[in-house]
Amino acid sequence: MNDGSKEDELVCAVDLGGTNLRAANIDRNGCLHERVRNSTPQSDKPEDVVARVAAAVRDCEAQALKRGARIQSVSVVVPGTVHIETGLVVNAPNLRSVQGYKLGPALESALHRPVLLENDANASALGERWQGAARGHHTIICLTLGTGVGGGIILDGKLWRGPDGTAGELGHTTVEPFGGAQCKCGNTGCLEVYASATAIVRLTRESLAQHPNSLLHSINATELTSERICNAAIAGDELALDVFQRAGVYLGIAMANFVNIFNPEMIVIGGGVSAAWEVFAQHARAEVRKRAFPVPAQRCRIERAKCGDDAGLLGAAWLALECGDSSPL
Amino acid sequence: MNDGSKEDELVCAVDLGGTNLRAANIDRNGCLHERVRNSTPQSDKPEDVVARVAAAVRDCEAQALKRGARIQSVSVVVPGTVHIETGLVVNAPNLRSVQGYKLGPALESALHRPVLLENDANASALGERWQGAARGHHTIICLTLGTGVGGGIILDGKLWRGPDGTAGELGHTTVEPFGGAQCKCGNTGCLEVYASATAIVRLTRESLAQHPNSLLHSINATELTSERICNAAIAGDELALDVFQRAGVYLGIAMANFVNIFNPEMIVIGGGVSAAWEVFAQHARAEVRKRAFPVPAQRCRIERAKCGDDAGLLGAAWLALECGDSSPL
Repeated sequence: MNDGSKEDELVCAVDLGGTNLRAANIDRNGCLHERVRNSTPQSDKPEDVVARVAAAVRDCEAQALKRGARIQSVSVVVPGTVHIETGLVVNAPNLRSVQGYKLGPALESALHRPVLLENDANASALGERWQGAARGHHTIICLTLGTGVGGGIILDGKLWRGPDGTAGELGHTTVEPFGGAQCKCGNTGCLEVYASATAIVRLTRESLAQHPNSLLHSINATELTSERICNAAIAGDELALDVFQRAGVYLGIAMANFVNIFNPEMIVIGGGVSAAWEVFAQHARAEVRKRAFPVPAQRCRIERAKCGDDAGLLGAAWLALECGDSSPL
Repeated sequence: MNDGSKEDELVCAVDLGGTNLRAANIDRNGCLHERVRNSTPQSDKPEDVVARVAAAVRDCEAQALKRGARIQSVSVVVPGTVHIETGLVVNAPNLRSVQGYKLGPALESALHRPVLLENDANASALGERWQGAARGHHTIICLTLGTGVGGGIILDGKLWRGPDGTAGELGHTTVEPFGGAQCKCGNTGCLEVYASATAIVRLTRESLAQHPNSLLHSINATELTSERICNAAIAGDELALDVFQRAGVYLGIAMANFVNIFNPEMIVIGGGVSAAWEVFAQHARAEVRKRAFPVPAQRCRIERAKCGDDAGLLGAAWLALECGDSSPL
């Protein structure tokens, strides 16, 4: 069903993470073509980041040209709050070098073309709606359980960013008001300190002593990762199962709130921790059933994301296509 | 600045509460003219409610006609979830007789004219935006602290109702996940069980024994109301101050969540309990500063509502005017 002429129109999408930089040429059908991977510069100079992103885009462009395809637009997602109109990165705790920097205009100068900028969790939500779990839905909440917990809100097909672009910080809603764990954001008891990969490792460390028979004692404490804890849970390890249950319950408390607040058609759970979805989904869903109003709880499908690491790239591409054409879906 | 011809165009707005029924003719300038008050029928027959509302509208119409003014449209707010397209009352815990009833069509048959239906908290938010505390703002969260806690969400000037009309149940977001007080909705630890008028009375009763010197001991336990507790707080009573502090902290926890979720320009606090706003505002605001991200927290003004009991009537009127004219503001 591919339309050759449309396939030639490419967006170069860039996912600028705190650690890795990934880029891909994406066509109107959501197919990813040429890819480029690199690391994100760890210097404190935003110019280094600009140079690395620009190099990745040029690399993608050169690869596309070899097969006669053209890049029509460039779209970049960043791990932070973005002011869309000005291209300013308002806040980026995992990429401090560009915090307070007008990354959008700097990239436009370097590349001599317009560059779209978007928050990574917002882009992931759009990607899942375009090509993933939320296809065909209009009102979607997306939670990305990674190093932190990112959130994206799509209402009637439109991303809700808020007047400062800071909306959608769903990982920083309080689920444990008093005596909760300290969050990097300054608050205590945020969803992020119970349902992120970092939280899974912390919760496991805190409970190791109480589970002397856990398989996880065989792993060096410094090598404990959420993937390993996930594998232990799948293998039936009691400690790992207990940790994912606690994460699932807190996730369910937050999701019940989102169900009562938004009446969404769907909540999509992505990010690295979602690899363990089968382990904690039941606990999260049970909490939503217990706490949310019946009508919106019944309406809301809660599913694992489908686009994996490419959700952000796909969302970035979709935004660029939407800007160039009012109805890409 | 009144325009005589415009002033003649009236909306008959009806606020159908669980106990009281209030109606008023409202002009395009937001002025309330003729008013009608009655009680809401306590029978289990929805037809009795329809008859009482229709009588109030006819009464308003007759009064308007005496001075040569015409009612152009009718708009009714109800204490429950409304499916706007069909006029069905999905859920109405405080007006069970109309729950599951197509109140919109029934009123249209009785009055031989179109009738708009809206949820009371949603209408209050619109009323505060049109004529109250949120004038000139586009993205507003409205909390009505009454018998329960109602919520209204206005994003970019548009009410967010959700696909089933159940969105905005901000009073039923969890602020105390474990061991919280039982809420009528089935959940425990909802904002409503800490910040409603009912909650103020319960929290006071629970703490009376610990405050033997409280002024509130002079009031018969069955006559304890949130108004009286508010007056005691203003008079410096320690127990009353403690109760409002706790309510303020929980309200602040919920509001910090809304700030991080929506990045609103404003949160408006209405309802009977807001009479004590000066007593608990500082605690609520401190919690928002402590928990929410700095940029959206600084953006968000948190103010007491200004329209009092008329907020719902005004919002109902605004909706009717908006339907007849695309730009009433």
